[in-house]
Amino acid sequence: MILVGQYDSPFVRRVAVTLHHYGLPFTRNPLSVFGDFDTMTAINPLRRVPSLILDDGEVLVDSAAIIDHLDEVVGPTRALVPRSDAERRKILKLAAVASGLSDKVVQLSFDRMFHSGEHRSATFEARLSSQILESLNFLEVQANDTWLCNSFSHSDVATGCMLGHLNLRLPEFMVQGLGNLKALQERCEALPAFQSAAIGSNETVPSQL
Amino acid sequence: MILVGQYDSPFVRRVAVTLHHYGLPFTRNPLSVFGDFDTMTAINPLRRVPSLILDDGEVLVDSAAIIDHLDEVVGPTRALVPRSDAERRKILKLAAVASGLSDKVVQLSFDRMFHSGEHRSATFEARLSSQILESLNFLEVQANDTWLCNSFSHSDVATGCMLGHLNLRLPEFMVQGLGNLKALQERCEALPAFQSAAIGSNETVPSQL
Repeated sequence: MILVGQYDSPFVRRVAVTLHHYGLPFTRNPLSVFGDFDTMTAINPLRRVPSLILDDGEVLVDSAAIIDHLDEVVGPTRALVPRSDAERRKILKLAAVASGLSDKVVQLSFDRMFHSGEHRSATFEARLSSQILESLNFLEVQANDTWLCNSFSHSDVATGCMLGHLNLRLPEFMVQGLGNLKALQERCEALPAFQSAAIGSNETVPSQL
Repeated sequence: MILVGQYDSPFVRRVAVTLHHYGLPFTRNPLSVFGDFDTMTAINPLRRVPSLILDDGEVLVDSAAIIDHLDEVVGPTRALVPRSDAERRKILKLAAVASGLSDKVVQLSFDRMFHSGEHRSATFEARLSSQILESLNFLEVQANDTWLCNSFSHSDVATGCMLGHLNLRLPEFMVQGLGNLKALQERCEALPAFQSAAIGSNETVPSQL
């Protein structure tokens, strides 16, 4: 399998951490959604990362859909989410909030990248900042134990990757409070699966797709 | 169950169509992510729609996570996606591309809403427009039969709702070609489940949450 994307994307990193945790071997093509804009189109018409290219050439896109497939590959006893019931709903919800929060961080970063200071919309930035802060506070309340749900799950992977990305792009959001989330992030980053997919790391890079 | 959101959101409408298709009764609270910005926070810290409030008060967020739950409720024989294998991967992929495309339409609409003409970034708008066009062309090629996959599925619901929203917000993208997608949209909008969740319709509205 080939994972397309770089680990400064929390969505790519989430899939990489999951692959490492499951012990599924993969190589990586660190295409950029900017520098390799045109090459990306053949893989994913949305030009989003991650994509996962299976060994027969089938291309999966969208981190949640990719992870759904990886869960099937390893089976229900090893998957980081049960197949049904309340625990599944809670894990998918918290993972969705963490991923949605990453979306907002990307949007705010892009808004600053594409609009010079005097052209930015204070209303839009205030809206995004408020969505980021409210969601961080929501997750902070949930993170009052070792892991977010009954055991280490997709919600922890998504939240750990979201926090790593937030620290990289908009560290000003993490300066005050959020002690539970900071502790959760430390626990995540100490795991071998997270360390194997460190932001900025260069894993095996194939010469071409 | 209470579905929170309005049908001018393709994500809310997708959940509503799925609920109607499954014959699951629900009421609706048409909160707006703008007008009811603060009230939304108590339901979803991201202030996104849809949310689905279950009868015991549990709140689900994120259209894909909500639909995952609805699939469990109706069971694998009635769900609009099989529980495993290639057909599941294809359905989830096409639904993700359609939903991702809707994300881009929302982003482009928001960029125009929040930045006056001379403050907009031509680079950012060109990037979004290209992502929208490439993804439409990708889905057009897939839509060469009655339904996108072997039978009516979540990929058709997501694509039908994406097209309805695109026609509402950025109809200029639908003027040329795309005959397969236009035919798919007509088939979707003719279904009772789509007609029951028409854009702009006012279904049962509870007086409060």
